[in-house]
Amino acid sequence: MERQILTPKFPHFLHGGDYNPDQWLDRPDILEKDIELMKKAHVNCVSLGIFAWAKLEPQEGVYCFDWLETIINNLYENGIYTILATPSGAKPLWMSEKYPEIRRVSKTLHRDLSGQRHNHCYTSPVYREKVREMDTRLAQHFAGHPGVIMWHISNEFGGTCYCPLCQEAFRNWLREKYGTLENLNHAWWTNFWSHTYTDWEQIHAPVPNGETEVHGLTIDWKRFTTYQTLDFMSEEIRAVKAVNPDLPVTANLMSFYEEIDYFKFGPKLDVISWDAYPAWHNLEPLKEAARTASCHDLMRSIKHEPWLLMESTPSVTNWAPVCKLKRPGMHELASLQAIAHGSQSVQYFQWRKSRGSSEKLHGAVVDHYGGSDTRVFREVTHVGERLETLEKAVYHTEVKPEVAIVFDWENRWAMEGSRGPRNGGLKYEQTVQAHHRAFWKQGVPVDFVDMDGDLSGYKLVITPMLYMYRNGFAKKLRAFVENGGTLVSTYWSGIADDTDLCFLGGWPGDGMMEVFGIWNEEIDALHEGETNRMDVRESMEGLRSSYTLSELCECIHLRGAEALAVYGQDFYAGSPVLTKNHFGAGDAYYVAARAEDAFQEDFYASLVKELGIRRALDTVLPEGVTASLRVGETDVVFVQNYNGEEKTVRLPYAMTDAETGETVQGDLVLPGYSAHILLEK
Amino acid sequence: MERQILTPKFPHFLHGGDYNPDQWLDRPDILEKDIELMKKAHVNCVSLGIFAWAKLEPQEGVYCFDWLETIINNLYENGIYTILATPSGAKPLWMSEKYPEIRRVSKTLHRDLSGQRHNHCYTSPVYREKVREMDTRLAQHFAGHPGVIMWHISNEFGGTCYCPLCQEAFRNWLREKYGTLENLNHAWWTNFWSHTYTDWEQIHAPVPNGETEVHGLTIDWKRFTTYQTLDFMSEEIRAVKAVNPDLPVTANLMSFYEEIDYFKFGPKLDVISWDAYPAWHNLEPLKEAARTASCHDLMRSIKHEPWLLMESTPSVTNWAPVCKLKRPGMHELASLQAIAHGSQSVQYFQWRKSRGSSEKLHGAVVDHYGGSDTRVFREVTHVGERLETLEKAVYHTEVKPEVAIVFDWENRWAMEGSRGPRNGGLKYEQTVQAHHRAFWKQGVPVDFVDMDGDLSGYKLVITPMLYMYRNGFAKKLRAFVENGGTLVSTYWSGIADDTDLCFLGGWPGDGMMEVFGIWNEEIDALHEGETNRMDVRESMEGLRSSYTLSELCECIHLRGAEALAVYGQDFYAGSPVLTKNHFGAGDAYYVAARAEDAFQEDFYASLVKELGIRRALDTVLPEGVTASLRVGETDVVFVQNYNGEEKTVRLPYAMTDAETGETVQGDLVLPGYSAHILLEK
Amino acid sequence: MERQILTPKFPHFLHGGDYNPDQWLDRPDILEKDIELMKKAHVNCVSLGIFAWAKLEPQEGVYCFDWLETIINNLYENGIYTILATPSGAKPLWMSEKYPEIRRVSKTLHRDLSGQRHNHCYTSPVYREKVREMDTRLAQHFAGHPGVIMWHISNEFGGTCYCPLCQEAFRNWLREKYGTLENLNHAWWTNFWSHTYTDWEQIHAPVPNGETEVHGLTIDWKRFTTYQTLDFMSEEIRAVKAVNPDLPVTANLMSFYEEIDYFKFGPKLDVISWDAYPAWHNLEPLKEAARTASCHDLMRSIKHEPWLLMESTPSVTNWAPVCKLKRPGMHELASLQAIAHGSQSVQYFQWRKSRGSSEKLHGAVVDHYGGSDTRVFREVTHVGERLETLEKAVYHTEVKPEVAIVFDWENRWAMEGSRGPRNGGLKYEQTVQAHHRAFWKQGVPVDFVDMDGDLSGYKLVITPMLYMYRNGFAKKLRAFVENGGTLVSTYWSGIADDTDLCFLGGWPGDGMMEVFGIWNEEIDALHEGETNRMDVRESMEGLRSSYTLSELCECIHLRGAEALAVYGQDFYAGSPVLTKNHFGAGDAYYVAARAEDAFQEDFYASLVKELGIRRALDTVLPEGVTASLRVGETDVVFVQNYNGEEKTVRLPYAMTDAETGETVQGDLVLPGYSAHILLEK
Repeated sequence: MERQILTPKFPHFLHGGDYNPDQWLDRPDILEKDIELMKKAHVNCVSLGIFAWAKLEPQEGVYCFDWLETIINNLYENGIYTILATPSGAKPLWMSEKYPEIRRVSKTLHRDLSGQRHNHCYTSPVYREKVREMDTRLAQHFAGHPGVIMWHISNEFGGTCYCPLCQEAFRNWLREKYGTLENLNHAWWTNFWSHTYTDWEQIHAPVPNGETEVHGLTIDWKRFTTYQTLDFMSEEIRAVKAVNPDLPVTANLMSFYEEIDYFKFGPKLDVISWDAYPAWHNLEPLKEAARTASCHDLMRSIKHEPWLLMESTPSVTNWAPVCKLKRPGMHELASLQAIAHGSQSVQYFQWRKSRGSSEKLHGAVVDHYGGSDTRVFREVTHVGERLETLEKAVYHTEVKPEVAIVFDWENRWAMEGSRGPRNGGLKYEQTVQAHHRAFWKQGVPVDFVDMDGDLSGYKLVITPMLYMYRNGFAKKLRAFVENGGTLVSTYWSGIADDTDLCFLGGWPGDGMMEVFGIWNEEIDALHEGETNRMDVRESMEGLRSSYTLSELCECIHLRGAEALAVYGQDFYAGSPVLTKNHFGAGDAYYVAARAEDAFQEDFYASLVKELGIRRALDTVLPEGVTASLRVGETDVVFVQNYNGEEKTVRLPYAMTDAETGETVQGDLVLPGYSAHILLEK
Repeated sequence: MERQILTPKFPHFLHGGDYNPDQWLDRPDILEKDIELMKKAHVNCVSLGIFAWAKLEPQEGVYCFDWLETIINNLYENGIYTILATPSGAKPLWMSEKYPEIRRVSKTLHRDLSGQRHNHCYTSPVYREKVREMDTRLAQHFAGHPGVIMWHISNEFGGTCYCPLCQEAFRNWLREKYGTLENLNHAWWTNFWSHTYTDWEQIHAPVPNGETEVHGLTIDWKRFTTYQTLDFMSEEIRAVKAVNPDLPVTANLMSFYEEIDYFKFGPKLDVISWDAYPAWHNLEPLKEAARTASCHDLMRSIKHEPWLLMESTPSVTNWAPVCKLKRPGMHELASLQAIAHGSQSVQYFQWRKSRGSSEKLHGAVVDHYGGSDTRVFREVTHVGERLETLEKAVYHTEVKPEVAIVFDWENRWAMEGSRGPRNGGLKYEQTVQAHHRAFWKQGVPVDFVDMDGDLSGYKLVITPMLYMYRNGFAKKLRAFVENGGTLVSTYWSGIADDTDLCFLGGWPGDGMMEVFGIWNEEIDALHEGETNRMDVRESMEGLRSSYTLSELCECIHLRGAEALAVYGQDFYAGSPVLTKNHFGAGDAYYVAARAEDAFQEDFYASLVKELGIRRALDTVLPEGVTASLRVGETDVVFVQNYNGEEKTVRLPYAMTDAETGETVQGDLVLPGYSAHILLEK
Repeated sequence: MERQILTPKFPHFLHGGDYNPDQWLDRPDILEKDIELMKKAHVNCVSLGIFAWAKLEPQEGVYCFDWLETIINNLYENGIYTILATPSGAKPLWMSEKYPEIRRVSKTLHRDLSGQRHNHCYTSPVYREKVREMDTRLAQHFAGHPGVIMWHISNEFGGTCYCPLCQEAFRNWLREKYGTLENLNHAWWTNFWSHTYTDWEQIHAPVPNGETEVHGLTIDWKRFTTYQTLDFMSEEIRAVKAVNPDLPVTANLMSFYEEIDYFKFGPKLDVISWDAYPAWHNLEPLKEAARTASCHDLMRSIKHEPWLLMESTPSVTNWAPVCKLKRPGMHELASLQAIAHGSQSVQYFQWRKSRGSSEKLHGAVVDHYGGSDTRVFREVTHVGERLETLEKAVYHTEVKPEVAIVFDWENRWAMEGSRGPRNGGLKYEQTVQAHHRAFWKQGVPVDFVDMDGDLSGYKLVITPMLYMYRNGFAKKLRAFVENGGTLVSTYWSGIADDTDLCFLGGWPGDGMMEVFGIWNEEIDALHEGETNRMDVRESMEGLRSSYTLSELCECIHLRGAEALAVYGQDFYAGSPVLTKNHFGAGDAYYVAARAEDAFQEDFYASLVKELGIRRALDTVLPEGVTASLRVGETDVVFVQNYNGEEKTVRLPYAMTDAETGETVQGDLVLPGYSAHILLEK
């Protein structure tokens, strides 16, 4: 399992975080104190240089790496390793003032002024040249340093630029994709409203005071943005790999971030990492725990490999409407949740609070106060201790689900961008998370895949709201079922193709009517608060007699499938809402309306049982308690209690406490906000 | 009654809708299928070419009409007539890219990019020239075709352009109107805040970062927008009439649309048509039915003639926050409601769903599915059959009300644009509709008139919230009452003149204090949820003892009138809120506060009885059931049930069912969402 | 007490308001009527010329002062005095059209068009020149007129300009302030995100599409805006004082207005005046009364001298969402509230309603109706009569509080601009007002001071939410306590310094941990509706056993202080929330969480008693009734009832009614909305 060693130079759980000593170079006392406190907190790894360009190149062409070298050496001498960032996430002010072209142009078509960060043009030749030069020099200087274990490429890639350079690159990308304007016009259905393009130069990015009604254009622009971001990142990777091809590269992602299709990042990066900032203790705390689990699973699923938690706050954020303190225990629980879902690290933003500017009040390990006698410092230290204890049993295990949920950025863009049955909110992302949550509650590991993904290894595949069937995907789904897989799909699926042209001949389109054995004639939208009812027939075991439906209800017709449940109300009462079709060697279920959580829970519990899908812990889990599984020579079960109060779980058999080595059996008592890590005997 | 024949070439109820074969020219199978399905659905008329400019003139100066001719011929050969559009509603992309001046400049003073539709500059000489050329050629080619029965000029005129050409035209329009700057400065009261204009060139359209506080300017800019839109339309009409003056012209309007004063369109168009998209099954379904009735009445009132329903959705829209399916029966009921209010057609947008872009999910007769075995297709077919059946009895009748409500766009602009007692919402439009609804519930036909209209033929005239008295209107009102008419007015009337200068000497101004016999000293505004009470004196028959008041309460004083009701609360308790003044041979009522619906219902029921105003059906109508009247050699009564459940109406005498020819008497049972058409014996 | 005579030429209470005869010069009948009505209403003073520039200089360089002279003469001959405005608040249209540079550039960096008012660039040399010329000529013409008693400089200074001239002035101001870029970079903490400035020209004002994350920049930009506004005003003052240095100058301010630090205006103006527009009869009427009292107190505190109520509406405003009429009595009560808090005038906006444009529906003494037989005219007249009656007893008294609340604009900007624990709302202003309200309810006079203010004369100083400790202020606070003063501070205090750099070493910073005897480790934010509890120990007399806490709760530790109350809930239950520390000769209290009003009321009542602070009336005051105090040879007590219903107050001893001269004792009955003015015997 060599593949799983993300940091060969230092093959351990990482504990530490973003460290910005460039803000404190005039305070050697503080830099010295940092080392002392890091060791006290069991920190073994920091990320350096993320926003340090102004210190690395204070004037154009004047490079100052000495200070950084000193820091890295000091850290290394004290047993602390460095993930070194390329500083492209925040261009220095002198550069954005001298070269306006590196600043983005917004949707209003005005160029940004200097300021903020993550807002450089991805296309600008000037910026690409400056970044290449900086990255090359950094690599030449540091890529061979024994304390430098990984590259942190830029920071939280995201956003869009509408400058003329980007628009020209977009046109070229379209030329490449479509070949002729005739193809493009057909794909985008531009005959509508006389939008036919007669020259490539007539194509502009979709902006509020321009074209927003040609959905194919909108989707392609988003695809291009991902493409161009990746192209920029690839240039950075080429620059550092040219010096030392063996030092792994990562980029810190943001889970369900809307604007970038992260699945495309998988092949480019050696390691996936991400920045997790859950709103713990919000008004739906248990949902938030499940949502965070889904984010971890999504990030893991980009490469289906172990990954790194690159940022998290040790206490509060400073950007939420209400920034609640993490309750005692929550920080450890949250940190171990990441490990449970496949992370090999717990890293923080940031080590020490900045004195000024916008992130000065964001939580950090070391407060402005400066001492280690704080609640936060103690909890961080405890996490460091537990990671060290757990490493032996856990480091070489990984997460291997039997269930996959399809989540696809292009589908998301297409669905949310199309005017349709419920412009007040289709809630694709929330729906995907609701389906994920039903498995999380049962302690069943789940992968995500997008439409480019491989379905063949799963027992169960769920495709919630798969409005778009990208070219070839229906065929893949069909083969999955034919070969014995179990497929569950929902309403608002199979409507349109890659460029948002609706399938003709009946929905779900592209041949899937046959697989599901149904025809979706029309879809009804319900007002907020309005409901319908799903009446379940006796044939479906484990389900209640009825469930509440809301928001979207399709009127479907059986074309071979069996109706497992029917609508209980309205003019389509009695018509099917849950169907099952045996197709090839498998089964295809169709859920024609949005159902309450209880339905998903019961329905998937029933399928899990029927299909023999493994749960992390085969027992009753109280509300807010879940279990996660990492498999290896010895499997590891993470039992997590997200309630503020103590809960008890009945273990199905005797297990070993991974931290104490003691045998645990019978009732496992979980204090509020706690995680217990158990080993299979 | 020749005047009423809107389509002399094909004097029948029209059934059909927008047809966009230009999107399917590469699919002859689909074009062939269209004809087959149209005939099956009893379609006899389509609107063609609305967005087809890119296909009619694919390159500048290259005109391709062959495909259109083929389509029109095929349709005609199959008994289907064509309303031919001028394509100016959507300029082709090549044109907006080549000639930027034809694109609008928005309120931010930035020029739009190419894209969307209905966004050409109405002033642009280039666009006017291009449109004239296209219209002339279309007319030369098609105006004599036996299958072409009407011109559909452009599409849904609307919006405003702030480009320099428009602003220059505005200044010229002002020069024409005011003659001197002195006149203009006085009319706009520009001494205020030193806004005095000393040169015509200093005048700019009101925009957010410019002048927004000179209300006279704001109102005149809106007047100019209507003027310029009309001027543009008139040029189109001149172009097509130059070829064949006999082919009637229409333009599809949008009822209470805010930006254009549709009453000014009456003299320019041969036929009024409009696009109706009620939000059936919303949270106040019965109010929505009444509101739709008021829209039909408003559109009919522009020319006080029969009209055409030019667009409606056969199923759902795709732009509402929640797009509910029409319940079974609703489509027929809605279609016949239009006929009941004077329409001679039921037309849809659109015949076949587009495959891509923004309207692909908007309801259409033919779904992406493509078959006729859908609920929607069946209901459309049924409408077609019923129109054929009803034609003999109904086609030559018309709507002739005895009650008129004054609704005036200039008043609307003036009132809504003035900072005043309730900036959180004066609700002029809703108030007008509330008064209309009281008659609708009783089955009393109602006209709308604006201040240019003729009041002389009505028994009862209502002027709700007539803040502005345009020059001469008070005199007209006075004459109406003097000559025996009954007038009802409300709070917030008679405040300002044409350019929003307040009347001096007491309100309601311009001499109307005498007519109403009251003086309005001041107006109180109530918070949301706050109420007052109207206590009714015994002298007013048919009214309850008290009604709830809200939002706006005037403190008025009697100056000759009689108080029929007084306030029940607050410091003005006991002072008059409902007054009656005998003036000349008539009566003038004044309602000084916003009252609940029940008041309007009881009050107008009482007046209807007293004045002998004819109801469509003289019986008790259950909630949600109404009756409409078309008069002719034999009068026709449309009994409509907007409830989802069955209702029963007791007929006052025996009548004939217009569709079956059978006699109906006693209890008429109306299934949910249904319309019965009865003939007077 | 000579200092208190604001208007030496006419040493009386002023009654009148803004008068805009320039709008009526073509109506001599109306101008004549004005004089007649003013005398009837007991008006003795008007403000003239505020928006009259277009009439004073109708063309560039053509000055027409004759009409104004005539008006002033007529008024004077009728015993009515003039406060003469410089007309710079509204530049004439011809000027803004000819010289674009005088128009502001907004945050979007687009220059405004001509229009509206109060939107000139404060930096523009052209505008400054035009204003200087106008002011000089006005002064030469009118400064010696016996009827002209004061200058009204411009109107409601406010707003910000982002034009290149202002930005250049900002850079110069920064150069002056910081000397070197190194200092500036450190003060603004620009190492963060590589924002280091390397050239002064790189500095731009904070705008949405530029830099918004460098808080030091944002605060300094706001400081500069105040500086530049003051600089503009000072030029106006110099111009008029150059002609007649003895004529006092005022400017009309807007109490808690966000954008300008009014405390900086004190030294520049002879007299403070302000424009009060409370939302009487809103949904929290008693809070509104207290809020208005706090506004009066803030305005008085700028110079700690008597002041003028320069504008108020005699009836309604026209810009609120809901403009309620003032209930009978409210106008007198509101007018006398201003006097009670130190005003020497009751002035209105405006005398006569404009006929057109945006303020035509704003309340005025004379309505469009034109007569004096209106409710408003009668109430205004009554105010005039009462002021005349009260003058002898009240004119030479003033307000002299023993309690001060620190309110500081720079703190406000810093706190509200920093991302932190509760971005959904820190509510600084509301918190300050809540603390003020607790004293208002008890009838205890309160001053405001900012951090430049003198604390030495007060017994009790409150510093609610003093996030920023400006340089030297902590030292001043420390000295205040050391010398025997009592200090009360709250959560979220002592966090950052002048340029928003956080204090290191523990909070409250800058040495104040020692004064309070506590350390604030971290702050928790609560969701809307979420609460905690303060459990009070027996040691604190006059407090209930518990109070509700919300929104912000600090986890503090005792470092010498005594805990008077502890948290009742959550993980910090039992830890201190209210502490007291004896320091030097004084006491420092710290309130670590936001408490309900009842806590402030009880806590301050207890301190008032303990410290022997004087109440206006030492008796129980019913809810909504308060008493205010003006001291002089004979002290005057204003007893005010803000309820709509009658209330009774038990007088502690016999007093004299200031209007009737009668002795009052025992129960004083206050009708709804009334004020009684009593003299100490």
